[in-house]
Amino acid sequence: MTSTAPAPGPASQVDGLSRLLQPRSIAIVGASADERTINGQVLANLQRRGFKGDLYPVNPKYQAVGGLECFEAIDRIPGTPDLAIVLLGAAHAVQAVAQCGRHHIPFACVIGAGFAELGGEGERLQAELVAVARQHGIRLVGPNCIGLMNVPDDVFAGFGPIFGMADLKAGTLSLATQSGGFGFGVVNMADEMGIGFRYAVSTGNEADLTSLDFFDAFIDDPGTRVLAGYFEGIRDAHRLPDVARRALAARKPVIVWKVGDTPEGERAAASHTGNLGGAAALYRAAFDQFGWIAIDDVHELVDCARAFASGKLPVDPNVGIVTVSGGAGVLLADRCAVQGLRVPALAQATRDRLGAVLPAYASTQNPVDITATVLNDPSLLRKALEIILEDGGVGSLIVVASSVEGPMAESIASELVALDAVTRKPIYVSWNARETRVGGAYRMLHAANVPLYRTPSRCCYALAAAHRFSQALVRHSRDAAAGSAGPVAAGRGSLPPVGNEYEAKQFLAAHGLATTAEALARTEQEAVAAARRIGYPVALKIQSPDIAHKTEAGGVRLHLSDAAAVAAAFHEVLDSARAYAPAARLSGVLVQEMVDGGVETILGVVNDERFGPAVMFGLGGIHAELLQDVVFRFAPISIEAAREMVASIRGHAVLTGARGCPVTDVEALARAIVCVSGLIESVGDDVAEIDINPLVVLPHGRGVRVVDALVVPKRPTSGPSGPAPE
Amino acid sequence: MTSTAPAPGPASQVDGLSRLLQPRSIAIVGASADERTINGQVLANLQRRGFKGDLYPVNPKYQAVGGLECFEAIDRIPGTPDLAIVLLGAAHAVQAVAQCGRHHIPFACVIGAGFAELGGEGERLQAELVAVARQHGIRLVGPNCIGLMNVPDDVFAGFGPIFGMADLKAGTLSLATQSGGFGFGVVNMADEMGIGFRYAVSTGNEADLTSLDFFDAFIDDPGTRVLAGYFEGIRDAHRLPDVARRALAARKPVIVWKVGDTPEGERAAASHTGNLGGAAALYRAAFDQFGWIAIDDVHELVDCARAFASGKLPVDPNVGIVTVSGGAGVLLADRCAVQGLRVPALAQATRDRLGAVLPAYASTQNPVDITATVLNDPSLLRKALEIILEDGGVGSLIVVASSVEGPMAESIASELVALDAVTRKPIYVSWNARETRVGGAYRMLHAANVPLYRTPSRCCYALAAAHRFSQALVRHSRDAAAGSAGPVAAGRGSLPPVGNEYEAKQFLAAHGLATTAEALARTEQEAVAAARRIGYPVALKIQSPDIAHKTEAGGVRLHLSDAAAVAAAFHEVLDSARAYAPAARLSGVLVQEMVDGGVETILGVVNDERFGPAVMFGLGGIHAELLQDVVFRFAPISIEAAREMVASIRGHAVLTGARGCPVTDVEALARAIVCVSGLIESVGDDVAEIDINPLVVLPHGRGVRVVDALVVPKRPTSGPSGPAPE
Repeated sequence: MTSTAPAPGPASQVDGLSRLLQPRSIAIVGASADERTINGQVLANLQRRGFKGDLYPVNPKYQAVGGLECFEAIDRIPGTPDLAIVLLGAAHAVQAVAQCGRHHIPFACVIGAGFAELGGEGERLQAELVAVARQHGIRLVGPNCIGLMNVPDDVFAGFGPIFGMADLKAGTLSLATQSGGFGFGVVNMADEMGIGFRYAVSTGNEADLTSLDFFDAFIDDPGTRVLAGYFEGIRDAHRLPDVARRALAARKPVIVWKVGDTPEGERAAASHTGNLGGAAALYRAAFDQFGWIAIDDVHELVDCARAFASGKLPVDPNVGIVTVSGGAGVLLADRCAVQGLRVPALAQATRDRLGAVLPAYASTQNPVDITATVLNDPSLLRKALEIILEDGGVGSLIVVASSVEGPMAESIASELVALDAVTRKPIYVSWNARETRVGGAYRMLHAANVPLYRTPSRCCYALAAAHRFSQALVRHSRDAAAGSAGPVAAGRGSLPPVGNEYEAKQFLAAHGLATTAEALARTEQEAVAAARRIGYPVALKIQSPDIAHKTEAGGVRLHLSDAAAVAAAFHEVLDSARAYAPAARLSGVLVQEMVDGGVETILGVVNDERFGPAVMFGLGGIHAELLQDVVFRFAPISIEAAREMVASIRGHAVLTGARGCPVTDVEALARAIVCVSGLIESVGDDVAEIDINPLVVLPHGRGVRVVDALVVPKRPTSGPSGPAPE
Repeated sequence: MTSTAPAPGPASQVDGLSRLLQPRSIAIVGASADERTINGQVLANLQRRGFKGDLYPVNPKYQAVGGLECFEAIDRIPGTPDLAIVLLGAAHAVQAVAQCGRHHIPFACVIGAGFAELGGEGERLQAELVAVARQHGIRLVGPNCIGLMNVPDDVFAGFGPIFGMADLKAGTLSLATQSGGFGFGVVNMADEMGIGFRYAVSTGNEADLTSLDFFDAFIDDPGTRVLAGYFEGIRDAHRLPDVARRALAARKPVIVWKVGDTPEGERAAASHTGNLGGAAALYRAAFDQFGWIAIDDVHELVDCARAFASGKLPVDPNVGIVTVSGGAGVLLADRCAVQGLRVPALAQATRDRLGAVLPAYASTQNPVDITATVLNDPSLLRKALEIILEDGGVGSLIVVASSVEGPMAESIASELVALDAVTRKPIYVSWNARETRVGGAYRMLHAANVPLYRTPSRCCYALAAAHRFSQALVRHSRDAAAGSAGPVAAGRGSLPPVGNEYEAKQFLAAHGLATTAEALARTEQEAVAAARRIGYPVALKIQSPDIAHKTEAGGVRLHLSDAAAVAAAFHEVLDSARAYAPAARLSGVLVQEMVDGGVETILGVVNDERFGPAVMFGLGGIHAELLQDVVFRFAPISIEAAREMVASIRGHAVLTGARGCPVTDVEALARAIVCVSGLIESVGDDVAEIDINPLVVLPHGRGVRVVDALVVPKRPTSGPSGPAPE
């Protein structure tokens, strides 16, 4: 936590943002009569759109603004507005927020810049702003934002060209955006492409209320069906899994546009909203895990929103494709494969039935090309679609109407609307005729919420996004049914001493992980006795809290096959370690079984400053570190989810017998992942890092072995809550 | 070559398609007076657009069509049309093409389907069509196509909605598309987005003229500045490198949309144009190598076309970003990094100068945020841009005008146009205001060919595409200067016997590759003598043209360190091989030096049926086969290009000392790649496959070693041109 993001105090329990998002009355602090200025725009925009509640301009310079009485100070306002829009320079804004708080106004939106995004004095002012808000129990939007919008209720409380567009469409998509200028540009373009909004909130520096707070509110809002966010970084990312699970429980898809993922973007974000990206892999992991649709451009938002507006989701990846011109079928078959969808062969019975109604030169295999003959007989399309919809092997349909236009277009559109109304399978349409030549058909499809796209690529993209969300819903139900999908109370168990490999492995073994047979020896005799007990060959490894790289220290001997070798090696590793690090505390020498065969993997926990603990898995050797072939997942992790993690790495085939590799015990590996997940739930808060490297996955039926492990506590483990180390 | 793609004969030397693409007169064979039919549409479309040459409808059923005399037969036409559009069923089309040929018509476009895409009888008809065309010296477009278009010259010779749009814009983009329906849908949408076309040709089944033939013509056409292709598969892909090099020499960018890359897409393509994709990796490799811009959707075509219309190319990846609202800067910095561009820090002098003109709260680091203050003083933008353009560290500019609209928009547009006119650095603009509110500004930018995009993502995408093309031009000049970029006369040298590893390595050594020290031994005595000469330790490997898997046959012994071990191993490998494959011919036992240290790689040649020979390189072990971390490149390969190949694999760091790996001799590796390229130029036609596995790259300064190798000839190597093996 930085000074600009205070730890949650009593005031930070968001128990509802309804007075903020649906205000009955608004104070505009710093209102101006000059509409060319930002200070003049906010009131004008609210009035132009026809805000139905009370508006209270505040500015000692005016008697009246916009035909309304203008108040000299906040405490002169009669009654208590639900929301104050603060249009003052940074220092004055702090004072105004204090006055709002004293006047019991519950929410203030601080438009002005000049806070943490500038660093230095700006950061100090932002900390003061937050302190003042805490003190008076007022919640903040911003600072450094451009306002908020509730489109159906005509609340256009902000500045800039988009707030001046009084004719924006109302809809069911709610957006939280850290960038006001760009975010409302997105609102503008999406509206232009036919998507209406419910809420759009620019959250700016998020000194108090964060995007996730607004997501929480959107999830509970009956008027919101789809959530969207434009983020530079999520400070309270540890809440993301919980918020995401609530969204899944509410069956509301989340579309996210996350920037600041590259060093270049991170640098730019730091000077924009004072945000720091970082942890790009964890953002991606979270989005994947919870089915959040990550986008990179405005049309992707629009395409997904249109898909979700249909209210239907594909229950499987199997797509039936029907074209009136074969070329689009080839493209779609490709795009489906690339996007993780399938284009299955149709049942022979389906093909026979299609053959009976379609012309001889039509293709009855999937993609089905009914050919331009449909222009002579539009009922062909309905007949073909009805037959294909009855094929149990097809879960959704993509219909490509190509360039069909004129009166035939409306016939086709009405056939599609009629069919869509009677099937639970989603029907997506790709149609490239110009709107000016086919507008009636497009309007019919839009009115019926049949997802319509101008190109096959975009059509397929949107269907695939809907399918990913659908899969996330299934995973969520499955994990919830398995009793492991509740919010994680991040671990509060206490961590035992884990200062060396031996202790770390004892700790992991206590959480159910299979470790190597081993013993800590403090004398040559103990070492030889342990080796006899364990069985030859064995390995010897120096144990010291002060030696991180045992091999480098000459502290490891492998493949020792008799007592004499163990005895000699015992002294060698001690001598080497003493020579390498004379001041190191030596805990003894670990005598460990040798593990032969199997595949080396890495399993561990990273505890990100923002996200909190997550499980990491990858293949060993160069795969994890050089090729970044690793996967992260947030606890709790069900056994099915663990299997998915294993299957999702690129080098997965190495574990399943490819190219002369052994067929390994991937089921034991999945159980090991579940153990680490449980460990996070128990002591996740206390560990900075767990690195099981290697975890050897033995051949099928023989399990896994923790061969080496490092556990780095977040705090000293001696006391339950000692001071944080430097 | 299949029956549908005959080997080039005398008639297949395309010496110019000008009479086809710019016909002065056209016969429409099978013309109809009924405009609702395809047969009626073609003449009507030509007339509606105002074709200026002579039109000759041919149909014995009519006296006149479209106000023109209708001819009973082709040979009744006075004079010789440049082109015949054939609108007849498949069997009749073959006869019509013969008649056209006898009438000395040089080109026929066969619209009808019913050919190879149906298989069987259709394939036979297509072969007959081609044979007839060859016999009469007439060149074919199609069959199974929808026609062709020369927009500036008003040749709209085809059917479907797009040919009926008489107001399509003329431009400088020329398209060859295998899918007529989808391809002309692309023309429609691109036109709608403001891109005009020069030629658009639907090539259908490409029984004769192929997309690459049209590319060749487009390269030579002064009216074409940008080429585009929509391919399901390129039958004559072996010509691609040559055509691509000609395009680079002409500085004409090529935009390609390749489908049929997945098994699903390939299956769909087979029933559409009878095309087979395959070799997706080789298509990608060719596109990468020659800077062809591969796209997946229509807007990408439009965005690239707009970028190339500017006539300026970025000379380096360094982008200066200027915004009027910081959020877009964060996004752009990210997108630039993802797309291979850089957002460098500005020189301190530049920042100082910016600081002097911009407001205090503006950001003078790249991305530069001049803030909304520009709305009060539009000259700020010009001043800032002038300063940044003078920074040598910036090669191109992206300006984000966000939602600026109204009169200020035109001021900004005119500043941008003026600046663009006086700098050689490309200026790209992202502007999200609606066209209805800012049309004048957009028109100004379009008129001046300043690339304009509605979103930062698309703006960055297009700039990155232009940069990739610019890099390809640089590579082309470099390789041409190095004397190795002429068209490859695929090797005609003769291949020596390469029936076993020993012979294969001798052959590779003769082409400059460093092989292990080794000798072929036929007796125990020869083996021991060879081992002594080579130096211990050595390896022994059975040599037989009939044993592909030496290790599996028990035919390999490693790390033999004295004469006794060699003598014993000699008999062991012979005995094992005889037991494993009693009928195998044994050529002897290879005595080979052991190579220690270094990194195992794979280097080889694949000789694709369509593309011909290409060099393949990747890391050994699971990297190449399981992780597909390989790179392909077509010969000739310069040393610089070889270095680029090595650097382009994901696991590249394994070769350069990462994670305890040795720093290897990558320069020797690059030289080995150049050797294999030379080998292709010499005998590429004769080899089906070369597989150097492993090629061990030794530590820096110690070179590489071919440790094992397989060379598979395409034909028996005994005679110069024996019959092909089964």
